[in-house]
Amino acid sequence: MRIPILKLHNTLLASIQWELDDQTALQFQEDLLQKIYETGANGVVIDITAIDFIDSFIAKVLGDVIQMSKLMGAKVVITGVQPAVAITLLELGVTLDDVLTALDLEKGLDKLRQELGD
Amino acid sequence: MRIPILKLHNTLLASIQWELDDQTALQFQEDLLQKIYETGANGVVIDITAIDFIDSFIAKVLGDVIQMSKLMGAKVVITGVQPAVAITLLELGVTLDDVLTALDLEKGLDKLRQELGD
Repeated sequence: MRIPILKLHNTLLASIQWELDDQTALQFQEDLLQKIYETGANGVVIDITAIDFIDSFIAKVLGDVIQMSKLMGAKVVITGVQPAVAITLLELGVTLDDVLTALDLEKGLDKLRQELGD
Repeated sequence: MRIPILKLHNTLLASIQWELDDQTALQFQEDLLQKIYETGANGVVIDITAIDFIDSFIAKVLGDVIQMSKLMGAKVVITGVQPAVAITLLELGVTLDDVLTALDLEKGLDKLRQELGD
């Protein structure tokens, strides 16, 4: 199983709508970076509304993919972080420094547009 | 496996990025109709760029989902129809009457906005 990544103008959208297993999470990381490279996208919105539980491995992969996207020049907005996920991320020490967040996909895209000055 | 469906304002976006098996196609049909109902979306963009081969069952499901979405009050735009898929659809008698089409996701969204007068 793979997470589809949509391209919308200069932005990539990925909506994770089911619990991630480890293999899917790693595949998503690889696919997203490859897609940033191919499309030259300068922004990424990752919607995790559907995730209401996150383990340490997935949290690390998520933290990594954000850092890696930044290294490739794309700003990342995470949307739909559930309370339990926020608690777990902090407890695991994944602080997601400088990561933009928003309540939902629409607000995430708006925020990204503001940041990128489009 | 399920196809994630993203909500963006009044529009739903679904990007089918891998070949559909029969079960996934039926699940997608059910999920999309449910999501139209839940969100009250008045437009749907289905991107099938990645599908370069389509069999009669999937073609029928696709034709059905378009008709059903219409019945529920949502306009459908299909984007990224490959030449081989267009040929197969016609040969199978799935003419997709009155269905809007566009080259890619961005153009599909633009077309939908025009149609809906947003």
